[in-house]
Amino acid sequence: MNRLRQHIEEITTINDEEFESIKTFFTHKNVRKNQFLLHEGDDVQFEFLVLEGIYKVFYLDENGKEHIVQFAKKNWWMTDYSGFFKQKKSTMFVECLSDGEVLCLTLEGREKLAAEFHTMEHFFRVKLTNGYVALQDRIRLLLSSTPQQRYEEFSKLYPDLMLQIPKKYIAEYLGVSRETLSRLYSNTK
Amino acid sequence: MNRLRQHIEEITTINDEEFESIKTFFTHKNVRKNQFLLHEGDDVQFEFLVLEGIYKVFYLDENGKEHIVQFAKKNWWMTDYSGFFKQKKSTMFVECLSDGEVLCLTLEGREKLAAEFHTMEHFFRVKLTNGYVALQDRIRLLLSSTPQQRYEEFSKLYPDLMLQIPKKYIAEYLGVSRETLSRLYSNTK
Repeated sequence: MNRLRQHIEEITTINDEEFESIKTFFTHKNVRKNQFLLHEGDDVQFEFLVLEGIYKVFYLDENGKEHIVQFAKKNWWMTDYSGFFKQKKSTMFVECLSDGEVLCLTLEGREKLAAEFHTMEHFFRVKLTNGYVALQDRIRLLLSSTPQQRYEEFSKLYPDLMLQIPKKYIAEYLGVSRETLSRLYSNTK
Repeated sequence: MNRLRQHIEEITTINDEEFESIKTFFTHKNVRKNQFLLHEGDDVQFEFLVLEGIYKVFYLDENGKEHIVQFAKKNWWMTDYSGFFKQKKSTMFVECLSDGEVLCLTLEGREKLAAEFHTMEHFFRVKLTNGYVALQDRIRLLLSSTPQQRYEEFSKLYPDLMLQIPKKYIAEYLGVSRETLSRLYSNTK
């Protein structure tokens, strides 16, 4: 749970007593490679904070084609947010691409934390702000960029993910074919 | 300023004394049709809360092609969020499509409001949560849907915007050609 405290204290300050109470809202879970934390159709019980591992959040369109909405790594939060916040069934899958560990937080727990501790309300607001800006940037990329620009932007933003995630998933995330991605990879070597 | 109070109280409760202080953070501005609240290259001084009017937030790609990131109507918030939160120059334009009124809030004001009033921190968190979910839904639409699905989704979500916004802007927002959009319109009549 020390990792949780460090993560929170990157944004706000909490004292020992507060942290003793805050940590009771989280449950720890070990995950194996290829294990699913969430399936389409599940109740979205949890938001997950990644302690270890690499994850992909994706959905299947009506033709069964997979689309990756986000990747997640250490200190990132993930879930099907639409399902989580509206307490509806999940339309997404969350899969672990390596062995890992996560902390799980329910919506009820999240709301209680935010109501009880102004610092935690602040923490969640800052996290959402960053997430909002990242999604707006992603929309811009999807609307206007060429495959090459998307690839360059992604490598600049996430050099570590470039090394850790299979190329086929990166291609899917960027909305480009694997052939195009391979060509871009070899051009930058 | 009563409209501001009503808007805040849709989410949280504030008393008279709190509101007297909260409202001092906002400045009122009248806008004319086709007036710009923000240009590419400007400092992003404000986030805007729409009191009246219809707005579009857009950017120009390197070929000078316009891409609409969001529309905004009464009670919606808008700006170039990346520029606003990171205090960088704007990469977007905000244009009023009709006469209107907005309230303007600086980042400094926003942060002070959130720090001083737990209720306002809560208000902004809830607003961001809704915005985050809407952007995630938009990414899904862009990633997988046919023009027809995008059109249907947009008409379901924003029947009022369908009536108030010129078709060419809706086509642009959905990333479809005007011809395709006209075909979809006539199919649904």
